[in-house]
Formats: sequence, C-alpha cells, structure tokens
Amino acid sequence: MGFGKIKRFIIGAPIATQKAHQELIPKWKALAVLSSDALSSVAYATEEILIPLAAVATAAMIWSIPISLAIIALLLILTISYHQTIKAYPNGGGAYIVAKENLGETAGLVAGGALLIDYVLTVAVSVSAGVENIVSAFPALGQWRIVIDSALILVIMLTNLRGVRESSGIFAYPTYFFIFSMFTMLSVGFYKVFTEQVANIVPVTHQIYPEIGLFLILRAFASGCAALTGVEAISNGIPLFRSPAQRNARITLSWMSVILGTVFIGMTVLAHWFNIVPGNGETVISSLARSVFGDNYLYYVLQISVALILMLAANTSYADFPRLSSLLARDRYLPRQLASQGDRLVFSNGVLGLSFCSIMLIYFVGGDTHHLIPLYAVGVFLSFTLSQSGMVVHHLRHKELHWRKGIAINALGAVTTGIVLVVIASTKFLHGAWMVVIAIPVLVYMFKKINTHYLATGKQLSMGDQKPPFKLAPMKHTVLIPISGVHRGIIDALRYAVTMSKDVMGVYVELEPGQGERFRTEWNKWAPQVPIVVLPSPFRSLSGPLFKFVDETIDSGEVEYITVLIPEFVTTKWWHRALHNQTAFLIRAGLAFKPNVAVISVRYHLDDKNS
Amino acid sequence: MGFGKIKRFIIGAPIATQKAHQELIPKWKALAVLSSDALSSVAYATEEILIPLAAVATAAMIWSIPISLAIIALLLILTISYHQTIKAYPNGGGAYIVAKENLGETAGLVAGGALLIDYVLTVAVSVSAGVENIVSAFPALGQWRIVIDSALILVIMLTNLRGVRESSGIFAYPTYFFIFSMFTMLSVGFYKVFTEQVANIVPVTHQIYPEIGLFLILRAFASGCAALTGVEAISNGIPLFRSPAQRNARITLSWMSVILGTVFIGMTVLAHWFNIVPGNGETVISSLARSVFGDNYLYYVLQISVALILMLAANTSYADFPRLSSLLARDRYLPRQLASQGDRLVFSNGVLGLSFCSIMLIYFVGGDTHHLIPLYAVGVFLSFTLSQSGMVVHHLRHKELHWRKGIAINALGAVTTGIVLVVIASTKFLHGAWMVVIAIPVLVYMFKKINTHYLATGKQLSMGDQKPPFKLAPMKHTVLIPISGVHRGIIDALRYAVTMSKDVMGVYVELEPGQGERFRTEWNKWAPQVPIVVLPSPFRSLSGPLFKFVDETIDSGEVEYITVLIPEFVTTKWWHRALHNQTAFLIRAGLAFKPNVAVISVRYHLDDKNS
Repeated sequence: MGFGKIKRFIIGAPIATQKAHQELIPKWKALAVLSSDALSSVAYATEEILIPLAAVATAAMIWSIPISLAIIALLLILTISYHQTIKAYPNGGGAYIVAKENLGETAGLVAGGALLIDYVLTVAVSVSAGVENIVSAFPALGQWRIVIDSALILVIMLTNLRGVRESSGIFAYPTYFFIFSMFTMLSVGFYKVFTEQVANIVPVTHQIYPEIGLFLILRAFASGCAALTGVEAISNGIPLFRSPAQRNARITLSWMSVILGTVFIGMTVLAHWFNIVPGNGETVISSLARSVFGDNYLYYVLQISVALILMLAANTSYADFPRLSSLLARDRYLPRQLASQGDRLVFSNGVLGLSFCSIMLIYFVGGDTHHLIPLYAVGVFLSFTLSQSGMVVHHLRHKELHWRKGIAINALGAVTTGIVLVVIASTKFLHGAWMVVIAIPVLVYMFKKINTHYLATGKQLSMGDQKPPFKLAPMKHTVLIPISGVHRGIIDALRYAVTMSKDVMGVYVELEPGQGERFRTEWNKWAPQVPIVVLPSPFRSLSGPLFKFVDETIDSGEVEYITVLIPEFVTTKWWHRALHNQTAFLIRAGLAFKPNVAVISVRYHLDDKNS
Repeated sequence: MGFGKIKRFIIGAPIATQKAHQELIPKWKALAVLSSDALSSVAYATEEILIPLAAVATAAMIWSIPISLAIIALLLILTISYHQTIKAYPNGGGAYIVAKENLGETAGLVAGGALLIDYVLTVAVSVSAGVENIVSAFPALGQWRIVIDSALILVIMLTNLRGVRESSGIFAYPTYFFIFSMFTMLSVGFYKVFTEQVANIVPVTHQIYPEIGLFLILRAFASGCAALTGVEAISNGIPLFRSPAQRNARITLSWMSVILGTVFIGMTVLAHWFNIVPGNGETVISSLARSVFGDNYLYYVLQISVALILMLAANTSYADFPRLSSLLARDRYLPRQLASQGDRLVFSNGVLGLSFCSIMLIYFVGGDTHHLIPLYAVGVFLSFTLSQSGMVVHHLRHKELHWRKGIAINALGAVTTGIVLVVIASTKFLHGAWMVVIAIPVLVYMFKKINTHYLATGKQLSMGDQKPPFKLAPMKHTVLIPISGVHRGIIDALRYAVTMSKDVMGVYVELEPGQGERFRTEWNKWAPQVPIVVLPSPFRSLSGPLFKFVDETIDSGEVEYITVLIPEFVTTKWWHRALHNQTAFLIRAGLAFKPNVAVISVRYHLDDKNS
C-alpha cells in the first residue's frame, strides 16, 4: 500500500470543488461545532475563580458569586455586540477582518496574531482540561496524561482532515450530551439544596462577604473570564451556516449565550453551596458531580460528557485556525501553502500546523491546564477589543440603518472588553501573560516581513510597463554529459542531447593519470560526432573538476546557458539503488544554485528480472 | 562556515593521488599500527581464561598456566605459517584473497565475511575493554560507560578520516608506552616474587593440578584464544610497509609474536602467583597492577597505557576493514561506494560504516566486553583455517622454492587452527558463537546477490556484439511548461524551451472553473508562438492533472520523449524558500520513475535585497 492509498484510507476520497456548497450545516449542528469552545469553558472557569480566592481564605470563596455575575454581564454585552458584527459582515467578521478594514493593517495583524495564538491555546487548554477530568475519574491514568493529550489531538486532527461536514456529524451529539448532563446535575443539585438533603449546606443569602483586596477580586475575575473564550467563534463562522446565514448565526449566538450563562452561574452557586474547595488533584466540576450524584454511574457519565465537550472545544479551533491562516495567507502575511484547500475541501496545512503547535505547547507546560489559562485570556480580550473598536469605526463610515444604536452598543463592548484586557494583562502578567505580550508583536513583525517579501517578489516578477508579446530569442546553449564509460545506458542520453542542442560535449573525469587518453580513443570510435573533454582529478573527486569546468565555461562568456545532462540508471528493486554511485545526486546538489546552469537526468531503466 | 569548510577543518585538506606512495610507513610505526590488536589482547586474554576456571574452584585457576602455554604454541605455529603467506602474497595476503584464489569464490567470501565481522568486533571489544580498565581505575565513571565508548570510537573515526600517515604518527608512541609499562610491571612483579616480598605467594611449582573436566579446560582454552586475534593484521597490511615490504613485514611479525608471547605468559604466571581472582567489577590486569605496584601513580600509568593500546587495537580495524571492503567492492561483492578512496587517500565510507556498526554493537550488549568475546574468536579462527588451507593449495599449484616445507608448515597451521575453531564453536556456541555462525552465511548470501546484480547490470549495459559508432537519431521530443501566470520569472524558461525544441507547449492547471479561458486570452497576447493547454482540476490538485496529461501524451505514441520544464524561483534568503509553493518538488517526485520523461528546472534568481 503506497502513501497515496494510506492517505485515502485515513482521510477519505477527494471531494470535487463543485461540491463545496453541500458542506454547509444546519443551526443545531453549527451550535455543536462553533459553540463548544465557549460552552466547555464552564468546565474550568469556576475553578479558575476559586483558586486565587481559596488561596487567601475559604470564606473568600463566596466572592465567586458576584464575580460570576459580572462575567455574565460581560457575556451579555459581548453577545449584543457580536449581533452587530454578524449583521455587518455576512461573510464572517473575525476580529482580523473587522480590525484590518476599519483600524488598518497593524491592528488587523495584532488581532490576527492574537487569535492564532488563542486557537493553539484553545486546543491545548481544552484537551488538557478534558484529560484532567478523565484523570479525576480514573486517577491511575495520571502518569499517562501527556501521552493521552497528544493521542487525542491526533484523533481530532485526523477527523478534521476528513472534512467539515463529517466532523460536525461526529461531534454534534456530544455537545447536546454535555448540555443535558450539566442541566441534570444542576437540577439534582438544586433539588437537593432546596429539599435540604445536603448536610453541610452554606446558604448564599446568609453569607457575609468578607473584605478582601481589590487586586485579588480583579485577579479572580480575570481568571474567570476564561469562561468567555470562544464567544466570537460564531461570528467568524458565518460561511458555514445554511442560508439565511446571518439570521441563523444570530439565533445560534443567542442560544449559546443563554446556555453558557445559565450553566456557568448554576455551577458557581452550587459549588459554593456544596462547599467545593479546589485542589487535591481533582477538578472542581468532578468534586461537585461526586457531591451531587455520589460516586455512582451518573458521576462517570457526567465526567465523560465534560471530557467530550472539551474535545469539541479543541475542534472549534480546527474550524477557525485553518480558516484564519488561509485569510492571512491570501493577504500574503503567511506562506502561500496555507491559503489553499486540500483535496477534501479542508485547509490541510493549517490543520497539521495547529496540531503540531498545540502538542508542543502541552509538552512545554507538562500538560497542566492552570499554566495555560493566564496566557489564554489576554489574546481573547485583545481581539474582542480590536473587533469592537473596529465596529465603531465601521458604523461611523457606513452609517447603515440604526448606526447610532450600533455605535453605542459596540463602543460599550470596546470599552468594557478593553478594561477587562487591562485587568487581565496586569493581574496575570507574571503568571504567563507576558509570553503572549511578547509573542504578539513577534508574530506581527513576522507577518510584515513575509508580506514585504511577497510584494517585492511580485514587483520583480510583474511585467511592469512592458508591452506584449515576450521576445523569446534562442539562447547560446551548451549541453555537457558526464560520462564514465561506453555502455548502453548513455545512448538515450546522447540522443536526447543531440535532439536538444547542436553544441553537445562529453565530459570524462580522469581519476588516475593515463585513463583519459585511453578513454578518448575508445570514445572517438563510438561517438565521433560528440567531442569529449578529459578533466584531470588529482584529488579523486568526480564532481569537483566538473563544477570547475562549468564555472570556467560560463565565465568565458561564450555560452549563455549550460545544461548538465546526467545519464542515470533506474533500478527496479529499491535496494539496488544503493549499489550505484550517487554521483547524479552530488552533481545536482552542487549545481542547484548556480545561475544559468540547469541539470537534467535522462534515465536508463534497468531490467532487473534476472538479478 | 559551509559543510565543505567544516569538513576541511576536521579532516584536513585533500591529498593528491600522486602523493599516495608517500603515505608508506617504517617498521617501527607499522608495528604500532598493525600489531596493537594482537598485543592489546593480553589485556583481557588472561581474564577470559580465569573466568570459567574460577567459576568451578579457585584451585582450578592453576590450569591457566598450561592453557596459556598451549596458546603460545599456537602463536608460534601461526607466526611461521604467516611468514609463508607474506612471502607468497607481496601485495597483502588477507584470508579473503588467499582463500578466494586457492579455494574458490565461496571460501573467499566466507573468509571475507568472517573478517568483516571480526573487524567490527575488534573495535567493539577493544574500546569496551579499554573503557572497563578506565572504569577500574576511576569507578565513578561506570555509569557513563557506553557514552565514553561511543565518544572514543568517534575520535578514532575522525583520526582515521585524516589519513593513515597521520594516524600512525598519533598512535605510534602509545604502543611503545604500553610495551614499556607491561615489561615494567612484569619486572617489578617477578622481582617481588623472587625476593619474597609478596605475603600471599602461591608458587607454581609446588601446586598440584586439580582434576577438572576436559570440556572446562577446552572452554578456558577457547576463551584464551582471544589473545591471538589480530595476528593476521601484518600479512594483510604489507602494502603499508616501506620497501623491501615483504622482508620488513616478516621482521615486524616476528617482533610482534615475541612481545605478545612474553607479555601474555608473564601476565598469566604473575596473576597466579599474586592470587588474582576475576570479577568484583575490576579487570584482572587492574587487580594485578594494583597488587604489584600498590595503589599509587605507577598503577594509574599502567591503566592508562592499557586503555591507550586498546584504542590502538580498535585502530587496527580502521586500517583493515575499509581496505577489505574496498577489495570486496572492486570484486563487485559490496556496493561500489566502498571501492574508492576519499580526498584524503582514505576509504572514507568504510571508516564511517565500521564506526556505525561497532557503536550499534556496543549499545546492543550494553558495553560489556565478556558478551562479545565468544562472538569474536569464531570468525578469527575461521579465517585462519581458510587462509592456511588456501596456502597449502597455493604451494601445490605454484611449486615455488621450498614448496614442500611450505606445505608442511601451512598444513600444520590449517589443521591446528581448524581444531581450535571446532573447539571454540562447540564450547562457546550457546554463549553467542551461534550469532556469528548465522551471520557469516547471511553475509555470503548478500555478497552473492550484490554480485549477481552488478553482473546482470554490466551485461545489460555492455555493447555486446554491436559495432561502433552509436546511431544517434534525434528524438520526437515535446517540452511541457507548467505555467501559473504571466510574469518575468517564465521568460528565461520559455527562451530555454524554444532553444531546445520546436515542440513547446504551456500547461495551465485550472483550479476554479472559468480561470482557464481568461488565462488563455492573456497568454495569447504575450506568447502567441507557444500553444497553451488548459487542464481542469476538479480536486484542486496542481500536479495530478499534469501527470495524467503526460501519461496520455506518451501513450498516444505521437512523441517519444517528454521534458517537463519547471520555471522555478531561487530566493537569496533560506527562509524565503518556504514561502513559495513547493510544486516543483512534487512534480519532480511524481515523475521520477516514469520512462521517457525528464524533468528540468530553469531557475529565475530573485533579487531579495529590498525584502
């Protein structure tokens, strides 16, 4: 089975371009593919709020409730803001596009860089958080954590190489499974609280909020903002929706926000009532589920659903990262290879790049989610801020229907997310946010360097003010054939050479003195019409004297172009290749960058049947 | 610094062919280069005899003395036998040559295979034994053993890549340092014994030989025969000697045997008198030196000399292995690349191959010398036996001066070494000798397969009964140029194409429907003389439709040969290469094995100064 067949087996038969439109998906599937990032963040957001609070005092954890409410307020503002974006950008209004169009190139590239980093982090955070929940349920797997992380990323990668439609088919059910499981846990939990079946209950209403520092509250808030990562995915993904795409996207976004808000605040309140303390090698969601259900099969079902939605969250990036890199590549800010779709209508290079980066990142932090979260939120809120600011400028420029309302909404969004960005960057700077603060300018610099190169190349290649047609004057052209002996294998090469040029010359490299003259006599019998040059080789190198001769011939100025024509054997068995001198390879490598020299192999196919 | 400069810095400037004769060396240096294998075996031979004896009873170790005497008798027979070989084969009478000439191809290949294996084992055994002696002196290094082994092999490899003369210069002094150190230790030891300064002395003469089984005695003898490995090196290395080479070689061989015999029996007797018991993580030679000198600087000096001579022993193989593989390669039993000398007059590929194999072997046995010794002696004695039997046939055929005496000597040699071979193979079979018993036939099979391929190729390539000159009729030849757009970068390619053929065709792969017709209109303005073919690509592949078109054109029978000419960019900065589609590479790979198709790149050099 060759590489081609293996590839087909794994990722499926190619899909023709004209089938592209069939890959659009209905709302309920789009919710699964595009919202899992946001929804899954409830699996770790409450925990991230509790960790800094619990580090001060158990009583301080009550602050998680007002903090969560503030985050939900932020979610509301974002949802309304993104409704505007969906309306204004029917082909997908990612932060990159919105910022670039309205705020200029640099702002666009900053947003683009921030988003690319975030997509990598989404994969790394989601997969490692998913595996942490699996490990919470089955602690024996703890030592294999990084291996499991990597294996899962590879599975998601392969699924995505098969194409969007099939991914959404595979991934739709787990989202609803998660939503259903979470609502079940919340219902059972609140039922137990209100029927006072819980021994250790701590009613919220009777609690006094202890005085703790503002910085701590802001830090807990900044950590909790991880809950909002992924909210923008739907506005980027409008091209995936069935028509009417904008309306469907707006409806899906609203659904998503309602579900996210409800589950998130429910989780936080219940965690407080059940007195869940973070740490001890178990996730908060796992502790809560164990407290609500007891250690029975319902607990395991919930944990599995959490792990699955987190895999889906990683999958969101597999829809967005390749799409954004292809946009950047089309605008000449990333290598061209990222611009085009593979034979399954997927941006395959982006899928591979994303997998590679996120596996590296997981190895780098040893598979620990908490080390990644501080890096995560900076980029998300940077792109929120740029995108909302861009929308304000958009409204000012286009003055479409209700543009004044639009400005108010998006200005509120920009200011709020801007403030949150400053809060996150300052409270989390030493915990890892500095890495993103450095990485984004580096990426922007790289984008601009790549762009400059493509523009310079384009300028050099353009026909400028020249008039058609091309002036195609023939060249003064010499063909050199390195020859080691008179045998059948060179006949085709000689015929090819005399066909392509009137100026053909054989070149014989003389390894031992005297060989050359003997060879010349023999040669003149067989091919008197082709002159032979004998090059002495005092250091027994086959290629050195040839390279020197090529240089001298070009430098003489008598020919404009030299072709080195190598008669090469092709063997039928792979191991036979090693038995022939690899001179052709050396000659090709040695002349690869010489101007006005081309190398061509004319092959003689050996028939190895009897050997 | 490019690869070429790094290579020059490490292995030195190239040496011209006419300087070859200057690389010959005087006797005292030849002794150092060619005898270190044999001389160094005293470092482990006594220990190998003692190990099986000590396993039965301490009293049984007295048997080491008669066993060593038997081995010295064998050494005498071998020395006299090899004098005959040196006389008969002035160009170097290795077992391969002698066996092949006199006993036929298979016997020669068996000897050749056995020797190649032994050269690898010599490197592995000598280096690991040397490091064991370093570790005996400095036990803290024990955990780095395999790393030190590998590093030392790499150092020896680099020294040898610089050339024979320089190697002998570097390596001559340590041999004499070892001989001097050993004689010092033996003198001090015997002086202490005779002046009765040793407390625990066990005089040999008063000892009664305890009755132990014959098999055990034979096993100890077989192990001790490791002392004789390397005796043949001088007769293989005659071409290295200054003239009169044969006489110098015979004298050197005699010197070597006397030194070897003296040191070996001296070591064994002294080890017995000083009651040295093998084991405890220390080598016998280290224990003995510690007992003789005490734990002072003389002990460390001796250990260093032992380690150095063992490195030299490894170096012997670096003279012999590449030379034998080059002989086998010239006879078409090994790949051609092994046949020729590199630019320092060294068979560089053989040097690299030997280093690789011996490092692998050391990793495989975990750096333990004792696991390698049983593998070692089988091959040595197999080649002794074949070489001596070959000499008997040689005398019978040539009937030179004193041929009857010659037959007697070599027949004795053949019979004795043959018996020893059977003893070694049977007593050591389960300890590892079986691997060599399997490996030799496998190698012989491989040699023959390679030979068959080269002969078949030679036959196919030979001009047979054809009469000169070649009939070089021009071909019906078409040039195809894949084109992605009209720009400067294709002008040279088009000029080249119209220079080489009257039948040139542009090929445009249409990724999206409609593009093709627009392109054709544009093209006809610029290059009306070059017809353009538009190939639709429903699966967005650039190379697939081109390959199909090439196949169809060849199958149509209207053209005999197709050249695919690729206009390719050359960038000045390495990272810019990644920014251009690697289509040229894919096309080249896809057409690499298609008959009657050649691929050529005509490069357009980008000037990246401003990017």
